[in-house]
Amino acid sequence: MAGAPRALFFDVFGTLVDWRGSIAAGAEDVLGSRPGLDFGAFADAWRDEYQPAMEAVRAGGRGFVRLDVLHAENLARILPRFGLGGLDAETMGELVALWHALDAWPDVTMGLARLRTRFRVAPVSNGNVAIMADLARHNGFLWDAVLGAEFSRDYKPKPRVYLDAAAAFGLPPDRCVMVAAHSGDLAAAKACGLMTAHVARPDEGGPGGGERAPSIDVDFVARDLIDLASLLGSALEDADG
Amino acid sequence: MAGAPRALFFDVFGTLVDWRGSIAAGAEDVLGSRPGLDFGAFADAWRDEYQPAMEAVRAGGRGFVRLDVLHAENLARILPRFGLGGLDAETMGELVALWHALDAWPDVTMGLARLRTRFRVAPVSNGNVAIMADLARHNGFLWDAVLGAEFSRDYKPKPRVYLDAAAAFGLPPDRCVMVAAHSGDLAAAKACGLMTAHVARPDEGGPGGGERAPSIDVDFVARDLIDLASLLGSALEDADG
Repeated sequence: MAGAPRALFFDVFGTLVDWRGSIAAGAEDVLGSRPGLDFGAFADAWRDEYQPAMEAVRAGGRGFVRLDVLHAENLARILPRFGLGGLDAETMGELVALWHALDAWPDVTMGLARLRTRFRVAPVSNGNVAIMADLARHNGFLWDAVLGAEFSRDYKPKPRVYLDAAAAFGLPPDRCVMVAAHSGDLAAAKACGLMTAHVARPDEGGPGGGERAPSIDVDFVARDLIDLASLLGSALEDADG
Repeated sequence: MAGAPRALFFDVFGTLVDWRGSIAAGAEDVLGSRPGLDFGAFADAWRDEYQPAMEAVRAGGRGFVRLDVLHAENLARILPRFGLGGLDAETMGELVALWHALDAWPDVTMGLARLRTRFRVAPVSNGNVAIMADLARHNGFLWDAVLGAEFSRDYKPKPRVYLDAAAAFGLPPDRCVMVAAHSGDLAAAKACGLMTAHVARPDEGGPGGGERAPSIDVDFVARDLIDLASLLGSALEDADG
């Protein structure tokens, strides 16, 4: 290891917050229960549009647009499939706002608070600043800064998103740890020289629909953020000793 | 007023923290007392290089560089004037780091905490993210995001710095308040459509060396952040009523 880690960067959707459960429950609140409408499938369909929408920006064919805008476009795209083609603008706005009020997994608020005592912490998410600020208030997260896609005007896994985050904290990449439940995110961070920590979220995409373990070599493998705080605490003591 | 304010953006150097007193005291700690060296004058000389250094970036002749870098360059420029031309790199680094540990004015930490209960809050400073993150930890500030020069890759008073901040919070400019002790900063924010609040820091540049009152029309005139919290609380109640 190049030296003791100084900063932790967090993926947010899936790693810190349960987007699928929150969107499914929130959409049911907004729309009312509707016979034949599977709200878990609705959440999945919405999320399935996420990568292709960002890809237009990453590939350079489209200037940077915030995720709030992509969420609204993607919602309009999937609504007809669920027999909701005629939804009014206000209701659509309420649905898009659900991404600002996703609930954290149970370990996250305490785990983050513990990690923040020893490391600088920032989200490095594809979510825009307003989403990050609202999720922080909703769940009691305290960040040193909000970095990520809007800060870099591009989407992960483009290298500049990870490199800008390290530079913003005045650190070389190898003193920063990318924390995520997704091996693809971690592979991209690792290619930029960051350290990596995998957090298991086996039920992110519904029961069994998440990564139980990383599919690449990472520096830390954690069950949750409480476990990560223990692992990183030990790493710091080793670096001091 | 277009509507109740939703977000507050803060100038930091001078408005929230006492750069002159902190740099003077910190430089004396680092360098030891030296006969004939006036540390207040040293702080002033360093700060005097601030606007010309940023102007090269604002005018477009130089790509964006973080304030930490400008602080180091400016320090090297002034040292010979104080008979300190031969200072070693480590000591220079300690001096540059003083800008990360400036002390807040006495009202700020409590005032910000009170304002944060009703408004989104962010620094919109020319200081870079690492400076803002360190000042926040040093003084117990809690921010919803760190906006400003590094987020916009340009320096105030360029319009995009103010406009990017409003957009990052998903707000029109007229629902945002720029808070500063400097009329020039407020004039630029006002020209972008933001509301404005002046905070008196009459001793910012040494006794009597700061603005006791704004030199332009502003929406709120406050003695300090506690006073601002009262004024904005009343404004919210008027907007509700």
